[in-house]
Amino acid sequence: MKFEVTILGSSSATPIFNRNPTAQVLNVNERLYLIDCGEGTQQQMLRFEIKASRIDHIFISHLHGDHYLGLIGLVSSMHLNGRVKPLKLYGPAPLLEIINLQFKYSETVLNYNIEFVATDALQPQIILDNQDVVVETIPLDHRIATTGFLFRQKKRLRKIIKEKAEALNIPVEHFPLLKRGEDYRAPDGKLYRNHELTVDSDQPKCYAYCSDTIYNERYFEQIQNADLLYHEATFLHNMLDRANKTFHTTAWQAGQVALQTGAKNLLIGHFSARYKSLTDLLDEARGVFPSTELAIEGSTFEVGEDLA
Amino acid sequence: MKFEVTILGSSSATPIFNRNPTAQVLNVNERLYLIDCGEGTQQQMLRFEIKASRIDHIFISHLHGDHYLGLIGLVSSMHLNGRVKPLKLYGPAPLLEIINLQFKYSETVLNYNIEFVATDALQPQIILDNQDVVVETIPLDHRIATTGFLFRQKKRLRKIIKEKAEALNIPVEHFPLLKRGEDYRAPDGKLYRNHELTVDSDQPKCYAYCSDTIYNERYFEQIQNADLLYHEATFLHNMLDRANKTFHTTAWQAGQVALQTGAKNLLIGHFSARYKSLTDLLDEARGVFPSTELAIEGSTFEVGEDLA
Repeated sequence: MKFEVTILGSSSATPIFNRNPTAQVLNVNERLYLIDCGEGTQQQMLRFEIKASRIDHIFISHLHGDHYLGLIGLVSSMHLNGRVKPLKLYGPAPLLEIINLQFKYSETVLNYNIEFVATDALQPQIILDNQDVVVETIPLDHRIATTGFLFRQKKRLRKIIKEKAEALNIPVEHFPLLKRGEDYRAPDGKLYRNHELTVDSDQPKCYAYCSDTIYNERYFEQIQNADLLYHEATFLHNMLDRANKTFHTTAWQAGQVALQTGAKNLLIGHFSARYKSLTDLLDEARGVFPSTELAIEGSTFEVGEDLA
Repeated sequence: MKFEVTILGSSSATPIFNRNPTAQVLNVNERLYLIDCGEGTQQQMLRFEIKASRIDHIFISHLHGDHYLGLIGLVSSMHLNGRVKPLKLYGPAPLLEIINLQFKYSETVLNYNIEFVATDALQPQIILDNQDVVVETIPLDHRIATTGFLFRQKKRLRKIIKEKAEALNIPVEHFPLLKRGEDYRAPDGKLYRNHELTVDSDQPKCYAYCSDTIYNERYFEQIQNADLLYHEATFLHNMLDRANKTFHTTAWQAGQVALQTGAKNLLIGHFSARYKSLTDLLDEARGVFPSTELAIEGSTFEVGEDLA
């Protein structure tokens, strides 16, 4: 079952050449979820061959431009490219006002519905629960109302051991019951225990997206034991004062978040334009938490994959 | 005296890989003027090494996203990069409302002033008149209020023939008068006619920017004899119905505009994403008006340069 994230943008407020503002695409069982949508996201999707038509859910963390300025363009292009199925959009309430104002003046009437869900930056909410994933907001601590997003894979049904089912001639009508854990009684009356006929599915995994935020333990409990934690790391720790002033995190602190919340792996991103090379940021985070990688454009990480 | 345009984006509504939405930078005597600002313009400026700090005037033709969605990001980056000098912004009145709404929710207070000039799509206006250039709006005919922009270079002062001025020992205080066309009387009483001591400066040139618009003769008189005409050419002429329906121009029609207005040279742009190759569009326009080029990303054209 696929559960992986592809990075479309790694830069903070001002882009630099080859680093775009924040956007990520999460693939859960071949359904795509877009997380943040900085300016140029649709161009990045073209570059990395990610089809906008496969995205049905877009999550916007907050209303700083580097996290959402690509949204109107993307939503317009979806319209111009013939989209009719609805799009679910999750973000701070004023996002809808901003979209509506821009469409008012461009006289755009979309051919599809945007189903908007306003997020609340004060307490965690479950904002999506479908067959593949449960998504919760993570209230973060930034200069304006900001939430991260916690993606918990759903536990899949048990897998039937095909050879055994065939050998016993189990009727296919019984398969859904087997997958749900029921035993099987053969026509001759013999009872087969479920665990003889099926194996457990993979343990569901969890992806935590935390950007933008100052280091603050209040969200630590919620993101405990993430298989993959994405955390912003805008500055090196020698710029802690600047990080505190702007409500951002240092690479050392991002490593600390991963360590203290029991994350299995850490991705860092949202790098300040001042860092032409990212090596120092990576080294600093790895000094605290070795299983760390840079969330750079075009790279894809499987949730749960060992990055150490 | 430099008068040249660099293309940052050539695509119409939906971008395709390697073609960005509309934006152009005009360099007039080393001052930069940005015309339209589609999504990703600031990234294109990084790519083509155009410094945002050198731009003091931005012109927005209309409020379709492919012509202005890069503006908020650019204006924010100017702020974050320490700009303090004012920025003049010209465009439809609601543009200011859109900017203000977005800055309200991002809680952005710029360190510099945006001096906004609302354009009127009903009649031509002179919106800028400085030492280098006069800029007029061109009312176009599109689905929403849209203006093009006509940049007329100012006539420069006459140039002093250095050798003659030195031979006659003309005092430097007299130079400004010579440049303005006055004669010179030497201490011995001899009169030197101005044309003996100076040469005329280059004839001022004119750049006309026409996007987006349906083919409509009402703006032809205003753009007569442009040294360089940029005209949108969204479709091939076999899609004339679509062009009419969407208030766009075909490549054949763009050639006709150049021909009928006596343009010296033509640039076509704003290409529909359906054209992976632009050769047919270029050939079609050249069939009508040979001195035509494609306005593709990264190319620079001197206004008045012969494109034939």
